[in-house]
Amino acid sequence: MTHPTPHLNIGLFGFGTVGEGLHEVFEKVRIKDAEIRRICVRDLSKPRSLPAPMFTDNPDDIFADPAINLIVELIDDAESSYKLVRRALEAGIPVVTGNKKMLAYHLEELIELQARTSTALLYDASACGSIPVIRNLEEYYDNDLLISVKGILNGSSNFILSKIFNESMSYDKALRLAQELGFAESNPTFDVDGYDSLFKLVIITVHAFGSYVSPDRVFNYGISTMNDADIRFANEKRRRIKLVAQVEKIEGNRFIMCVMPQFITKDKYIYSVEDEFNGVVIKGECYGKQFMFGRGAGGHPTGSSVLSDITARLHDYKYEYKKRHGSTPPRYTDELSFQLYLRYTDEADRELFRFTDITERYWSNDHKYVIGKVSLRNLVEIQERLRGKDLFLAAYPEN
Amino acid sequence: MTHPTPHLNIGLFGFGTVGEGLHEVFEKVRIKDAEIRRICVRDLSKPRSLPAPMFTDNPDDIFADPAINLIVELIDDAESSYKLVRRALEAGIPVVTGNKKMLAYHLEELIELQARTSTALLYDASACGSIPVIRNLEEYYDNDLLISVKGILNGSSNFILSKIFNESMSYDKALRLAQELGFAESNPTFDVDGYDSLFKLVIITVHAFGSYVSPDRVFNYGISTMNDADIRFANEKRRRIKLVAQVEKIEGNRFIMCVMPQFITKDKYIYSVEDEFNGVVIKGECYGKQFMFGRGAGGHPTGSSVLSDITARLHDYKYEYKKRHGSTPPRYTDELSFQLYLRYTDEADRELFRFTDITERYWSNDHKYVIGKVSLRNLVEIQERLRGKDLFLAAYPEN
Repeated sequence: MTHPTPHLNIGLFGFGTVGEGLHEVFEKVRIKDAEIRRICVRDLSKPRSLPAPMFTDNPDDIFADPAINLIVELIDDAESSYKLVRRALEAGIPVVTGNKKMLAYHLEELIELQARTSTALLYDASACGSIPVIRNLEEYYDNDLLISVKGILNGSSNFILSKIFNESMSYDKALRLAQELGFAESNPTFDVDGYDSLFKLVIITVHAFGSYVSPDRVFNYGISTMNDADIRFANEKRRRIKLVAQVEKIEGNRFIMCVMPQFITKDKYIYSVEDEFNGVVIKGECYGKQFMFGRGAGGHPTGSSVLSDITARLHDYKYEYKKRHGSTPPRYTDELSFQLYLRYTDEADRELFRFTDITERYWSNDHKYVIGKVSLRNLVEIQERLRGKDLFLAAYPEN
Repeated sequence: MTHPTPHLNIGLFGFGTVGEGLHEVFEKVRIKDAEIRRICVRDLSKPRSLPAPMFTDNPDDIFADPAINLIVELIDDAESSYKLVRRALEAGIPVVTGNKKMLAYHLEELIELQARTSTALLYDASACGSIPVIRNLEEYYDNDLLISVKGILNGSSNFILSKIFNESMSYDKALRLAQELGFAESNPTFDVDGYDSLFKLVIITVHAFGSYVSPDRVFNYGISTMNDADIRFANEKRRRIKLVAQVEKIEGNRFIMCVMPQFITKDKYIYSVEDEFNGVVIKGECYGKQFMFGRGAGGHPTGSSVLSDITARLHDYKYEYKKRHGSTPPRYTDELSFQLYLRYTDEADRELFRFTDITERYWSNDHKYVIGKVSLRNLVEIQERLRGKDLFLAAYPEN
């Protein structure tokens, strides 16, 4: 914090919803120590809101400009993003990125690259839009008191669920509306099948517990197979279905992670997180539950989060990954059993789940469901076989 | 962030609710780089939970110990706190404090003293217990997009209001219960007459807008004169009375501040902040509303917030007061008119308020009330004359 950077000349990659949002935020805030100098886009022929000379389609034009001392990377494609970030860090140029998929797959390596090149990579905008989750986990909840981080991390799927539960809108109509309003990812399966939440959870976990866990090792299930029977069931039980991502310490200095729908009771903070908003509950010994709530998607909210990362660079801020240097960071496990609701048609599908302690079973001409205990490890193992099947699952906590 | 302090040997002043809470948090978290070395208390004869040699009643024993490189000051008395903090900073020893009254009256000068001595003073625990409001305003919402900070900053008065509105408990009984549970200040008028919220608001404003405003210049009214008629009125209007502190930018690069009860509608985030919890809504251009919610009082939550300040010192963290160095920090004004509810008996009291645009008047044998526009400046001017009078006032926003 003691060597302020004199002036930030930004090379921006990507001018989609967030890139353009960032530019508009810059216009409003009139920061005198930072400016967007050049913008690299894929398609130069698209009409733009800024003069043509601002744009290039050649990354070399950014990297060759000696005045550019910060790269802001807001492109959609994870592989291209990865290459750009590597190239920038290796050239000693700090980077701000919002690409959660890229980070979720490459963070372990990018942490090492930051250390080796002494060059900062900031990405608070990659998780929960305008809510400063990563920064707070890194700087404020920086000790062993932390127990869990749990929340609604995807605005688009939450918007769909809100429309379904509050306005009885159909799934398809709600999805189209989310896309029209600009807070769905270009690939909707990212949102509705839980991948977006999963990627964010992987990033959050690094800052919560100091451990990187590959997304491929974490159970992840979305809301795209939810049907009227599931919605009716939730309403009967006076609960709402929410897509919840969570990482939680359990005994033996271990932690579990998962992304899946949950039936949430009214007394929970996340029950009231509506529409495209995100809500995160940070729980710790001594301080109890902290709830942070805000806009999790959209050009302006995410753009303002990117801006906070940019202005942090004015003060030479970098993540220290404090918890990775702790004495014994907790380790990932999937050894946990918990209560699950499964709606299904084919008995062979149900058998995959190896239910124990069954508390409810239901059968009609129309559909079947079962509630009982399942093992998280088994879910991780069978998760690929569940794709495309006529079933829906959701955690069913006792309260 | 580049010169980590090797080991923090803490001299602790005060071993009341928060001091003892901090010690218990330390026991749980087992931080290897920091320890409480010596504790200075007023009354050595009191039975303590720690061995007697840990304690002294002579501040010189702390200041004379060359190993002590951090002072944590958690005493109740603002004047003694001020002297300790000055003495420590002048000796070049960084300080963590939780004393909001001391800060609210001396922050301007203590900012200069920090600069002159290059010694850090941290005080996130002074506002909102476990919610990192100051840190986030300083580090994350560090730009001109911020519009307002508004919230419930006093857990004790909120606890009382919750018990009154949810459980129809009497004011006196609720106050006693809050004191028994340990989240009332030793002087209850601090809580229920709004001073605690006011002091926190003054500190928050420094980090929100870069300007220090003396508490004496800010309108402040509490809940201690609220009676059954006011509660009935709120219930009829389907609102709840909450004690709200707010600082808000208005046109002309100015901001207003006030602490007073408000009739809150159900759709507001702070409507649902119950019991001893605090809730803060940070509003900005582009990112909209951010809501932060958590335990605002009590030994463990506040102790864990003090711990976050302590561990921040392990990384040489200090507040940079960034917004004070901005080009044109907004300036404080009380030129604002807004809608107020006044319940009163004496017409001469009502006249003090100089109501305009009256929308409701009520008279019965029992009590009278009026709703209309008043000027914040006039309220500041008459506020001392309102003390002890048989009346109650609360902002009555149109929605």
